[in-house]
Amino acid sequence: MSRSSNRKQEIYKIDWHLPAASSTAAARHISSDLFVLTYGVLVAQLCQDYPSDEDVNKCLDSMGYNIGIRLVEDFLANSGIKKCRSYSETVDIIAKVAFKMYLGITPTTVGANDGGNGFSLVLDKNPLVDFVDELPAGRPTLSYCNLLAGVIRGALEMIHLPADVTFIQDILKGDDVTEIGITFQRRVDDKKSKKNK
Amino acid sequence: MSRSSNRKQEIYKIDWHLPAASSTAAARHISSDLFVLTYGVLVAQLCQDYPSDEDVNKCLDSMGYNIGIRLVEDFLANSGIKKCRSYSETVDIIAKVAFKMYLGITPTTVGANDGGNGFSLVLDKNPLVDFVDELPAGRPTLSYCNLLAGVIRGALEMIHLPADVTFIQDILKGDDVTEIGITFQRRVDDKKSKKNK
Repeated sequence: MSRSSNRKQEIYKIDWHLPAASSTAAARHISSDLFVLTYGVLVAQLCQDYPSDEDVNKCLDSMGYNIGIRLVEDFLANSGIKKCRSYSETVDIIAKVAFKMYLGITPTTVGANDGGNGFSLVLDKNPLVDFVDELPAGRPTLSYCNLLAGVIRGALEMIHLPADVTFIQDILKGDDVTEIGITFQRRVDDKKSKKNK
Repeated sequence: MSRSSNRKQEIYKIDWHLPAASSTAAARHISSDLFVLTYGVLVAQLCQDYPSDEDVNKCLDSMGYNIGIRLVEDFLANSGIKKCRSYSETVDIIAKVAFKMYLGITPTTVGANDGGNGFSLVLDKNPLVDFVDELPAGRPTLSYCNLLAGVIRGALEMIHLPADVTFIQDILKGDDVTEIGITFQRRVDDKKSKKNK
């Protein structure tokens, strides 16, 4: 257990190996299989390292965040996308361009909620779990794909759209689909009233 | 240090999350950037976990091996490749088909040595280090991409071609290129004499 508590301190460290993303890194197109299996060994390693599902989930989110804040620059450079005019447009681009580019799928977008700041991405199939039949034994609350939530959160923060990103449904937990919830921290009303001031 | 010795025991465990590769996992084509950054966080995590470069290298090789023995089935299904007639042809396919498929590059092949069983793959550019400027401080003997050596070793073993696979040169260590050495454990002479018996 002492190992666990020591390790908790280290979860949020910024990693040496992720310098500022370079747009000179040419976008190559590859089969997703090696990525999906490599992601699997990363999750397995974290499950070895942290006894608690919550710590693994936090660690994946934190790692994803660090990836997202670097990936967004290359994403904007490679996709040619400029400014989004609304939350809805932003979520659409995440689904139709970013997911297509990095995972080869296009989730359905759902939203917004009453406040206009809550959306969902619904994945009928989730390529990240292509090689995974079920959650590992004794890991019922593991959010296996939580890195993705962190990537989206990090990327959005870099373009000044802070958001909470969490998995709402998960095929690996018996749900019919995988659903990622994105709730922008500034409500649409807030933005409007700020503009009117 | 006790953490380190405990962990050494765990290096070679087979991971729960990698069941037999399913050829139903459709090959999707994606940008390599997310994979490359995710690989970076995996290496960083192992560097946190193991104080010794040797242990990190062994762990990456072992993880790669577990990936390779699963990936080969999908590789053969997706590439349509049947039996190779020589070591030379096998290495050519690794370079021209497998590397292209999974990393988006085609290394140059060099070989064979006098025994006819030693080859090299030479990578002028290595996409796995696209976002990495240098090895982390205090990690001079880290073989950053060692997962690849393990993947090749695992895949070759599954098609009954056991081989030693190691990094001979590494751009991250100041070499001009990255060179992966593949030495098949059975010499060509052994195979011929076996056939003649």
